[in-house]
Amino acid sequence: MDRRTLLTGGTFLVAAALTQDAHARSERVDATQADAELMQLAIDQAKEGDYPFGAIIVREGKVLALGTNSTKRLHDPTAHAEMMAIRNFLSGHEPEELKQTTIYASGEPCPMCMGAIVWCGFQRLVYAASIDQLATKIGQIDVTARRIANAAPFIDMQITAGVLSGNAMQLFDTDKK
Amino acid sequence: MDRRTLLTGGTFLVAAALTQDAHARSERVDATQADAELMQLAIDQAKEGDYPFGAIIVREGKVLALGTNSTKRLHDPTAHAEMMAIRNFLSGHEPEELKQTTIYASGEPCPMCMGAIVWCGFQRLVYAASIDQLATKIGQIDVTARRIANAAPFIDMQITAGVLSGNAMQLFDTDKK
Repeated sequence: MDRRTLLTGGTFLVAAALTQDAHARSERVDATQADAELMQLAIDQAKEGDYPFGAIIVREGKVLALGTNSTKRLHDPTAHAEMMAIRNFLSGHEPEELKQTTIYASGEPCPMCMGAIVWCGFQRLVYAASIDQLATKIGQIDVTARRIANAAPFIDMQITAGVLSGNAMQLFDTDKK
Repeated sequence: MDRRTLLTGGTFLVAAALTQDAHARSERVDATQADAELMQLAIDQAKEGDYPFGAIIVREGKVLALGTNSTKRLHDPTAHAEMMAIRNFLSGHEPEELKQTTIYASGEPCPMCMGAIVWCGFQRLVYAASIDQLATKIGQIDVTARRIANAAPFIDMQITAGVLSGNAMQLFDTDKK
C-alpha cells in the first residue's frame, strides 16, 4: 500500500483520519503545514546519514535536537536517527522535557526506536515512510510503531503517519553509499 | 502464568521446549547449568540497578560486558540494562563480534532492547523473568521478545526463557528504591 501523502515538496495531502479505538494508547492526528516543513528538516538529516534516515525533536515549533543514522561512523548498530536525536537531546536537557516534544522521523520508527520513544514519553510522533515502504528497500523488523505504542498502557501519544513519505523514500534511490 | 524455573539458587529446571515453526526467526533452546550460573551474574547486576534489571554479554563462557539499569543516574530513559551492556561492549569491541555472543538479561527485553538485540545480531538471548511476570511489578510494553525476533527476516536467533526467573522477580520485593 502506497501511503505517500506528498509527491512534490511544498504541498501536502493528509491521508490519516482522526480515529481512536477504545484500547488505543495512541491517537491518529492530521498533519499540518508546519509538520511538512519540520519533516523536511528530518529528511535533510537523513541525507547526511550512513543510511538515509533522519530525525529531529521539536517543542512549540523550535528544533531542539537533530539525529542522523550514524551506525557506520560510530560502529554502533543502535545508532539509528531517532536514538541519535534522543541522545543529542539528553546531552543538554532533562528527560522530563521530552514529554512536551514531538519527534519527526523520516522513517517509521523500528521497535527499538519506538520503544525508546515510548519510554521517553514523547507527546507526539510524526513519520514519513512506513515500515512497509522501507521494507522494499532495506531490512526491517515487521512490527509497526502503532503496535508498540498501543501495547504501552502508561502512555497517550499522538501519531501522524505519511508526511512527505515520497521525499523520504526517494533518498533510497539517490543514495550511493 | 508463572514461568519461574528456579525457586532456590543453585539448581534449576528447564521449562522451554525445543520447538521451531516454519516462519520463526528465533529458536527455543534449553538452558544449561552454565546458563544458570551466568544468569546469576546478570541478576547480580540487577541488584546494582536504578530499577532491578541487569544484563551481561558472554562469548564462549567469558563475560565481555556488564549492564545495569542506569535510567536515573544517567537521566536517560533508554539506559536499560541491555542497552548499557551493548554500549559497554561497543566501547571496546567491534559490532561484528556481537554475532558470536549471548546476552543474558534478568528481565525479558522490552521492544527497545529487543530491537537493539536484533540489530546487533546476537547469536542467542537468555532471559529470566518474562514481560508478563514483570508487568505485575512495573510498567511494561506488552510485546514479547519472541514477537520482535520473529518479525526480523534477517536474523536467526536462539532464545531461552525463564532461567532463574524466581530470583529475578524476587528483586522487586526486596528493592527499596
